Amino acid sequence: MSAGDDPRPPRQTADADRHLEETPLGGEWVYDGALLHVRRDTVRLPDGGSATREYVVHAGAVLIVPVLDDGTLVIERQHRYPMNRVFVEFPAGKLDPGEDPLFCGQRELQEETGYTAREWAHAGAMHLAVAYSTEIIHIYFARGLTVGDQQLDHEEFVELTTVTPAQLLDWCRDGTVSDAKTLTCTLWLQNVLSGAWTLDWKSADFPRAAS
Amino acid sequence: MSAGDDPRPPRQTADADRHLEETPLGGEWVYDGALLHVRRDTVRLPDGGSATREYVVHAGAVLIVPVLDDGTLVIERQHRYPMNRVFVEFPAGKLDPGEDPLFCGQRELQEETGYTAREWAHAGAMHLAVAYSTEIIHIYFARGLTVGDQQLDHEEFVELTTVTPAQLLDWCRDGTVSDAKTLTCTLWLQNVLSGAWTLDWKSADFPRAAS
Repeated sequence: MSAGDDPRPPRQTADADRHLEETPLGGEWVYDGALLHVRRDTVRLPDGGSATREYVVHAGAVLIVPVLDDGTLVIERQHRYPMNRVFVEFPAGKLDPGEDPLFCGQRELQEETGYTAREWAHAGAMHLAVAYSTEIIHIYFARGLTVGDQQLDHEEFVELTTVTPAQLLDWCRDGTVSDAKTLTCTLWLQNVLSGAWTLDWKSADFPRAAS
Repeated sequence: MSAGDDPRPPRQTADADRHLEETPLGGEWVYDGALLHVRRDTVRLPDGGSATREYVVHAGAVLIVPVLDDGTLVIERQHRYPMNRVFVEFPAGKLDPGEDPLFCGQRELQEETGYTAREWAHAGAMHLAVAYSTEIIHIYFARGLTVGDQQLDHEEFVELTTVTPAQLLDWCRDGTVSDAKTLTCTLWLQNVLSGAWTLDWKSADFPRAAS
């Protein structure tokens, strides 16, 4: 398989980790849907054997932790069809092709919640399902929020509510929140609020890469 | 679509949330692979419109937070082909059909790390990728560990190491750990260690459902 046919992120294996690496021998697209694009590759295993790897090729996404002036958080309630239930989640959305993550965060926050934010801070990133997806979710915090109108996609039905950090943590403990990306960002929130982890806040109009 | 054809978990939508619910109109399997089983359903939207939903039907998994007697944690380093890099992760593995989650955790801990544990505690559960997967991951803590031999699957190449909770939190902050399931369980770990969240520890041989 030539590098041009490999839809995965660029290789990031340190020399010291080569003994763990699986390398592509070839592959094909097995499902090309509206949302999901699924690939099946044959790989060379570290011991010289071979195996099949199936995975979703994903464009990546951005999640926003929106902090109101009184310290409460804007969160969403949304029915998720695969799980057949409603989830409590931080706002998030998929990157458009070539889109800058910060720009995507600003766009998604406005579309899904109506809020715009005066200040933004990049927190980190998570890989959502490392066994079978290339999805990365970039994490931003937003503050200095001004309310506006939701501009939901015609297939989206999202209810907004607010929650205190203490209540959110209770919900993570008791299972009311079980969405992995929201649980992960609650780890960020808890450590930012305690002062253990710091954020580098920037004005919403600071220069960013063209998108 | 009859209930028998619906591979999703049973409906868990409260009456108060019916206005957010998407209901199935029909569907088909679009990819039936060795690891991934992908479905495409047509759904009735809350406003009466229709849409397509594509998702991975997953058997579920178990993650174990293994705590050594000195308070350090057993973690794994594993190359994940979809992301083309090595990840730091807590041990985890998929449920066999009908398998009890605790039994799965005991089996996976022994297979992947060689350790057996005297005491187990169920912490909670996460839903990994609510937009496109039915995967649930049950979270267990294990302590009173005794070392043994790894029994890895022939396609698995997993390196073991240990880490202190403080180091693990640093790794979550600086991006060394970016796996969402491991980040989520670090939220559990931090709150268990602070005493904010409590676990109900049980002896490894307490009665469990037949599996």
